[in-house]
Order: sequence, then C-alpha cells, then structure tokens
Amino acid sequence: MASPVNPPRGMRDFLPSEKRKRDVVLDVIRSTYRSFGFDEIETPVVEDSSRLHAGLGGDNEKLAFAVMKRALGPDDLKAAESPLDLADLGLRFDLTVPLARFYATHRAELPTVFRAIQIAPVWRAERPQKGRYRQFVQCDIDIIGEPGALAEIELLSATSAVLTRLGLVGTTIRINDRRILLALLSHWKVPIDRFDQALVTIDKLDKIGVDGVVAELAELGVPTSGLAEQLGQLAEATWETGATAPDWLDGEAFHDLEALRAALPDAKLEFDPTLVRGMGYYTGTIFEVAHPDFGYSLGGGGRYDGMIGRFLGADVPAAGFSLGFERLVDLVEVPGHSSDGGLVVLFEKGVEPAALVRLQAELVAAGHSRVRIDKKAKNLTNQLNGLTEAGFSSFTVVRDATVPLADLEIRDLG
Amino acid sequence: MASPVNPPRGMRDFLPSEKRKRDVVLDVIRSTYRSFGFDEIETPVVEDSSRLHAGLGGDNEKLAFAVMKRALGPDDLKAAESPLDLADLGLRFDLTVPLARFYATHRAELPTVFRAIQIAPVWRAERPQKGRYRQFVQCDIDIIGEPGALAEIELLSATSAVLTRLGLVGTTIRINDRRILLALLSHWKVPIDRFDQALVTIDKLDKIGVDGVVAELAELGVPTSGLAEQLGQLAEATWETGATAPDWLDGEAFHDLEALRAALPDAKLEFDPTLVRGMGYYTGTIFEVAHPDFGYSLGGGGRYDGMIGRFLGADVPAAGFSLGFERLVDLVEVPGHSSDGGLVVLFEKGVEPAALVRLQAELVAAGHSRVRIDKKAKNLTNQLNGLTEAGFSSFTVVRDATVPLADLEIRDLG
Repeated sequence: MASPVNPPRGMRDFLPSEKRKRDVVLDVIRSTYRSFGFDEIETPVVEDSSRLHAGLGGDNEKLAFAVMKRALGPDDLKAAESPLDLADLGLRFDLTVPLARFYATHRAELPTVFRAIQIAPVWRAERPQKGRYRQFVQCDIDIIGEPGALAEIELLSATSAVLTRLGLVGTTIRINDRRILLALLSHWKVPIDRFDQALVTIDKLDKIGVDGVVAELAELGVPTSGLAEQLGQLAEATWETGATAPDWLDGEAFHDLEALRAALPDAKLEFDPTLVRGMGYYTGTIFEVAHPDFGYSLGGGGRYDGMIGRFLGADVPAAGFSLGFERLVDLVEVPGHSSDGGLVVLFEKGVEPAALVRLQAELVAAGHSRVRIDKKAKNLTNQLNGLTEAGFSSFTVVRDATVPLADLEIRDLG
Repeated sequence: MASPVNPPRGMRDFLPSEKRKRDVVLDVIRSTYRSFGFDEIETPVVEDSSRLHAGLGGDNEKLAFAVMKRALGPDDLKAAESPLDLADLGLRFDLTVPLARFYATHRAELPTVFRAIQIAPVWRAERPQKGRYRQFVQCDIDIIGEPGALAEIELLSATSAVLTRLGLVGTTIRINDRRILLALLSHWKVPIDRFDQALVTIDKLDKIGVDGVVAELAELGVPTSGLAEQLGQLAEATWETGATAPDWLDGEAFHDLEALRAALPDAKLEFDPTLVRGMGYYTGTIFEVAHPDFGYSLGGGGRYDGMIGRFLGADVPAAGFSLGFERLVDLVEVPGHSSDGGLVVLFEKGVEPAALVRLQAELVAAGHSRVRIDKKAKNLTNQLNGLTEAGFSSFTVVRDATVPLADLEIRDLG
C-alpha cells in the first residue's frame, strides 16, 4: 500500500454527491441572476502578473499564486532579484481585477450598461483552516456604466431574490456608505494619512468594543474627547437614530441609503455606519450579507467607480456584489440533491455486455434520466442500500438483457 | 487612451453569447453522460508538481505551467539548480493524472466500478496557433474497475449518444488495439527499444505515405523486405480484409474489436490498424473520433490498465474517452443559442429606479426567464437591433413604472 495521497494543501476534491449539490446551488444562483438581466462571461484563470500586482487587489495581491515563466535557464535563476522576476502570470485572487481587464479588452463589444455574472474559482495562498480554502468559488455580479442608484437597487434586488430562492431565511443586508465613513473620520480629525488604519479599527468595534476602539484611535493621534459617546451611538445606530441626523453623519449619503431602503421594502436592509468592507477601492454604497447564525458575512459589495477604468485609462462607474459560494453551499439544504432519481440495471453472471448496453440505450431513449449498469452483488441488500445513498430511485434485475422493455420488472429502491 | 489590453497569450475571454453557447453544449454533454450512469467529480486545477511529473503525462509534462513556492527568499533563488526546484505545484495538463490521484485518495468511498465524468479546463504552454489554446476544456469519461469489454462498450455507446445529440452527423470512430500494433512491430522485427519511435512513424502513414514510412523504419534498423506491401495492406485495411487474417494481424485482439463492432451496430466503428494514439499508457483498445470534414480528431481514448493504480500502488483496470471540447463547440450549431428569449424594459427619462426594479421583480415572478432594464435610446431602431442580437425576444416601453403588469404593452422584437 502506497502512502496516503491527497489533493494539494488547502484544496479539495468533490465526490459525485458533493459535486452534484454544488452544481444545483450554482444553477439557482446563475439562473436567478440571469433572470434579472445579467449575462455570464468567463476569463482565463490566470492574468498577467503585472495586472494582478497593479494595486487593485489590496492585501489579496500578496496571496497570489505565481506562475513561472517557461524555459528559464540557470542564468535566469541567478539573475533574479526577487521571485516575481521569474513569474509572468498568476492565478487570479478575485474576479474584480479580471473584470477590469476584461472590460478594458472588450468595451467596444459590450452594451453601454453592462451587467456581468462571473461564477468561477479564485486562488489565495492563505494558511488553510476550517472553512477557508486555497481554491474557492465566488459568485459575482457587476453593473458597469450606470452611475445612478439604479445599479445598487438592481444588485440588491437580484441578490435578495437569490437568497430567497436558496431558502436562506433570516439573512439581512447591512448597508453603509463610504462617504459616511470618510465624513466621520474628518469629524474626528483623524490625520488623513491614517484613514485606512482608522477604518480597520472601526471595523473591529463589535470585537474590541468602544474602549478598545478609543484606545486604538488615540494611538493614531485622534483627539478622544466625546469619542466614546459617539462610538456608542454608531454601534447602536438604526434607520431611526440616523434620521435624527447626529452631527457626525453625512446627511446626503444617509439620504441616499434611505432611498435604497424605500426602493427595496422586501430586502431587509440594516443601516450600519460601522460597516467598513476591506477593499480600498469602494467609493459609495457598501453592503454585506449577514446571517443571524454566523459571525461571518456571506457576501458583500458596493460601488467602486474608480477601479474598472484603471486598465482602460478612463473613468467608468461600477458597482458589484459578490457571494461567497463556499459558505452559502454549506447552509443551503437542497431537497433531494442526493436522491434525484435514476434506474440501476443489476445483471446476473453471464449476461452479454452488448445486450446490456443496448438495453441501457433503450431505457435512456425511453426517457429515464439516468441508467447505470451494475453487476448484481452477492449481498443484494447491501448493494441496494448503497445505490439508494447514491441517489438512485429504482432498480431491475436481468438474467437476459434481450428482454423487451415492457417485460422489465422495475422496482422502487429504499 | 491606454495601450491595448489583452488576456494572457494563447488564452481567451468569452463574451456573453460565446459563454452561453459553450454552456448549452457542455450541458448536452454532461446530461447525456449522466443519463448513461456516469457521475461528475471535480479536482483542484493544480496538482503537486511531483505527481504531474511522475511520467504519466508523456510529452505533455514538458508543457505544464509551474506554480512557484510561496515565500521564497533570495537564498532559495541562488540555491535553485533548476526552475522546478522553485515550484511545488503545477496547472494540470490533462484530466487523467488528476483522476489517478483522485482515485488513490478516495478509493474507499467509491463504488467498485466507478464511472467518472470530468468536464474542466486544462493548461499547456504550447506555442499558440489557430484552434490551439493554452487553456482549453476537455470532457472526459472514465470507467475504473471494469476489466471486461463492458467498459469499452459503455464508453462508445455513451459517446455516440453525445455526438448524435450534438447533431454531429457523419462522425465515425476509428478503432484499433495496442496489441495489434505490438504484434505488428514484433512481426517486422523492430528492435524493442525502438517501439515508441516506430509507432510515431506508423502514425504518420496518412501524411508521409508508404515510402516515407518504409524509409523511416529502415533508419530504425527494420528489415524492409515485404514492408511496403504490408503497409499498403494496413492503410487499406477494413473489417473485411482484417477478417481474412493477414499474417501480421493479432487474431485475438481483432476478434475482440469485432465483438465491439457487433455490440454497437449504430456506432459507425471503422477498423484502422494504423491508429496509434500518442500516449504510451494505453494497453488495449484505442479509439479516435473522426469527422469527414476535418483532418484532426475530435476526441479519443482507450484502455489503460496500468496507470490509474500508479499512485495507489495497486493494479486497477481502466478505460476512458476524452472529447476535445474546443473543436466540438465550433462544429455544433446550437439552434437559438443566441436568441433564447427575454424581455427588455425600456424606460423613458425620469422614471423612478425603485419602481423599475419592482416591475422587473414582478415580471420575473410572473415567469419571464430574463428581464433586463435599459434606458430607451434616442435611436430606438438601433437599440432594438442590438437587443435582438443579444438574444432578447420582446420589449416594452414604460413612462411610468408603477403601471400594473396587465397594462404593459409587450411587443415582439426582430
């Protein structure tokens, strides 16, 4: 016996039943987004190294897997000053950098307002841990070319429909606006070169509490007078307290969020002025899908007007929503995904293979969605249990495979 | 304007209409194979470098894209003697090596006879040329654990059904047996260490002709007496001439091929004793899909009993069939793939986004498969032509999106 053989560290194989469940859930997501007018596109899994490392990927750039140049010689190795000198491609770490590149390549062939679906794997060389993988699937929708609130409303409406169709009751969408955060930082007199760090700190409010945030902001040189009280207000903020317009709130941005809420009465939007979202490229609305049973978000997105045009050399308005598929698929119950039917033809010893396969083809032609040929085992009960587990719903035993279809005795499994 | 931006060399983006066609064709392949009792699995796109370079991939190993180790320092670069010292992973160049690895990992969880579908991209760093890409999709089915002809019959029956459902009339399947080739080489007294080169030469018979092959075999030290005549017989061989049992033919292997032919009267099998298939791992039957209009094959496969067990340290019988998706998809006419319907809501200036998106959700809930919101353009004719091209089949113009569904005037496009 050889030593255990495994897929690469942090990556997974999918057995038939897992693969089937994933495909069923992906089909719901894909067809729902499609029904809301989005179109699916595909890009290669690798992009040129220089594009992946153009500063659009935040911390994820550091996690990119690098693909080596071909035909490197010993001299190339000696001359290299850093590993990246030896790489010309990299596995994508998100679907947003490839979308920006795709849009720059194909803009002339795309409609003025382009609604894209991307459902595809991405790769990050993170330390593997429970629920975190080095290859995982993201489901992104993006609207490029629409500067107005129509983009956000469409994104939220379509994504709410996806969550409903997946049966994820109880999910809410937390919402904020990058402008509210920036106004807050100005109000608190955070030095402008500390904005990013201050946002990271605010993002931790629910973990380290008001005192923790005050202490960290103080370290950044922020005056602490009145800070604790206002952080308390932030943590407690609702649509109602927001509407009373505390002096730290950007009124125009809040008004826009209220308009979104009014536009989507069924979408369960929660105002959360402490919502930050990690990526620096967001310029307006930001949102995140929360589930009451889980401490992590199921997805998120927002408006990022400056980014899509970066490879194009022109400004293009854009907003997007990304669902984390690996978390979703674990939560979704797919009724019958493991028992979607099918017939097994169990054959006795001595039956002609040619006749068996002809019988199989006839059964498929007669409308059976799935027909498997299997040798009848000595322990039939055991075998039938295994087939039930594999999702089959009926079986027949043949001694002579030339029997006419009408004479086959088909019995229910399980 | 920035300089042109393109996907990585030899790789492609897929625009919505291309992506849609690919998915429609893949669904036919997937669902047909599934109806014949095969189960889809998935493995990561990368495998450990040592497995990719274990000698199972033939010439393709040299074309593997290598993924660099993470956190390499300057010392690692200096110490490296070859580029592969710096890589621990690689992009898969086929789906067979990953299947062997998958089977070794999961054998205990799989049925005794395991029928796998893999539909997935592979990567090869080939010189890009027309119709040859560095990322392309393969559609593989494999039967592991079945030593008898039932495996070959099932593979050929299911694949014939796929070709029929794709409307690829006129395709034939050329068939041979590795044992026939080996008997031939013995008969011709080819030195055993020249077998591989001799097979490469025989494979070129239709390109370089009898004289060319005789000349190349002579260079390998093969006695040329009677060779030209026998090569002529080979090139002309049919089921009928095979049945008269020329002395160069392995009778048992030919008998097995005839049994396959009898088992599959609808499959258009052609006996071709010059069919070689490149991979050295084949041990029995080999086959290749030919189309009368094209000089290249659309797919192929065969029995490869020694290989699947290599990572397992045990012998496991296996046979498989691989379709080259990129060639197939170009040949297939998908009726209506670019006009699968959908409704466009064209809105006049001043219509409330919120009401529009509510209307969209109502239309989707009412059963419209695809509803897009679009601003009405000044040149309506132009706009409607574009929407027809994008596959939409109807449109409506709204001045007030709060109109009840029943009052919407929906008109046909095109």
